[in-house]
Amino acid sequence: MILGKIVGTVVATRKDEKLVGLRFHLVQNLGLDGALKPGFVVAADSVGAGVGEVVLYASGSSARQTVQTDNRPVDATIMAIVDTLEVGGEICYRKDA
Amino acid sequence: MILGKIVGTVVATRKDEKLVGLRFHLVQNLGLDGALKPGFVVAADSVGAGVGEVVLYASGSSARQTVQTDNRPVDATIMAIVDTLEVGGEICYRKDA
Amino acid sequence: MILGKIVGTVVATRKDEKLVGLRFHLVQNLGLDGALKPGFVVAADSVGAGVGEVVLYASGSSARQTVQTDNRPVDATIMAIVDTLEVGGEICYRKDA
Amino acid sequence: MILGKIVGTVVATRKDEKLVGLRFHLVQNLGLDGALKPGFVVAADSVGAGVGEVVLYASGSSARQTVQTDNRPVDATIMAIVDTLEVGGEICYRKDA
Amino acid sequence: MILGKIVGTVVATRKDEKLVGLRFHLVQNLGLDGALKPGFVVAADSVGAGVGEVVLYASGSSARQTVQTDNRPVDATIMAIVDTLEVGGEICYRKDA
Repeated sequence: MILGKIVGTVVATRKDEKLVGLRFHLVQNLGLDGALKPGFVVAADSVGAGVGEVVLYASGSSARQTVQTDNRPVDATIMAIVDTLEVGGEICYRKDA
Repeated sequence: MILGKIVGTVVATRKDEKLVGLRFHLVQNLGLDGALKPGFVVAADSVGAGVGEVVLYASGSSARQTVQTDNRPVDATIMAIVDTLEVGGEICYRKDA
Repeated sequence: MILGKIVGTVVATRKDEKLVGLRFHLVQNLGLDGALKPGFVVAADSVGAGVGEVVLYASGSSARQTVQTDNRPVDATIMAIVDTLEVGGEICYRKDA
Repeated sequence: MILGKIVGTVVATRKDEKLVGLRFHLVQNLGLDGALKPGFVVAADSVGAGVGEVVLYASGSSARQTVQTDNRPVDATIMAIVDTLEVGGEICYRKDA
Repeated sequence: MILGKIVGTVVATRKDEKLVGLRFHLVQNLGLDGALKPGFVVAADSVGAGVGEVVLYASGSSARQTVQTDNRPVDATIMAIVDTLEVGGEICYRKDA
């Protein structure tokens, strides 16, 4: 999975019929230090995450292994909201810290 | 999914028999600021998008999860036309704006 | 799909038994301007393409969705020979031009 | 598979229901010389690896081919702990060396 | 498929049970000129290749389409040993040359 931060939202009314009901977030990649890095994806959401949250997203066919995304043309899905990130024995990110 | 803009079209009469009837667009990647970035793909289309439109495309096996692309040798499919893109609380792209 | 040009051929007599009968081409990536770019793959061929031709290839599981490559350990397959490439309203490549 | 070193851990209590029970490690890529390289993933674990260990992880649908990750929205799984790495006839990494 | 050269070996006794019996090679990428390039993977082997050989490997789900790797958590498999590489009408690599 890739570590990212939700930085925005995409609205699309004209879309494949299998996408109806899904929300799409703009997720920018994060480094191990918790800082934003270049690179982003548009991801569906299986956990009700919101703008500003640090999340994990799965890509490829794995992005379709949730109840919300099964058999849909979706190649990136947010499947966890990060509470803490520990690197080298130190907490480098904590939600609501 | 990846955010892109349709910048052109590919015509190919000699192709795998499973591709007959599909249209192929040249889709260049876009940044979070809505500007063109290096990098492009050739994508099939499940939504009737046209040149100049900002779209989302799915890659890999997810590109085959539409009625139009099921079981076809296609690894990128446009599955949504973007209406608005909101980053950091501001609309940074609006269709027909 | 990725736009590329066939620049060479690979011969391999010792190979997985499921690969017998397939031809392998060296396909170098092309830019939107039709110029060669760094990066290449070795691709199987479902359309009888030859050296010098501009083609589209599909990657990943999509590369196995042709009669020739079904169930084979192949992750890149040429599935179309490009006739024309139109970008920004201008033809930037035409076969046999 | 990709060669990496476990450098940290991710805790996420709010996650897709299919992820319950899995542990997530931060795995940074390693070069052939055994040194850390830029780039990392968050990987599930099928072998009980811990922080500081050199591991192999599989990506994409292959990451779901273990008993622990079957049918789960996971796109990277640690599936081996490296004992030795031999390059050019020399051991360049040995566990517990 | 990607063109590479086997430059080393990985030994791992603690691994997912489905990996027992597979050998893992370090495969470094090669350019069209036959020279080593940055970038490498750890690949399983379906053809009995050895250190120093120039090979093709398949990635992703295609890496599991061999008898040796079926249903295993393997995302890169060597499936051919290259005899010759011809680019621009010239042989740029020949095995045992």
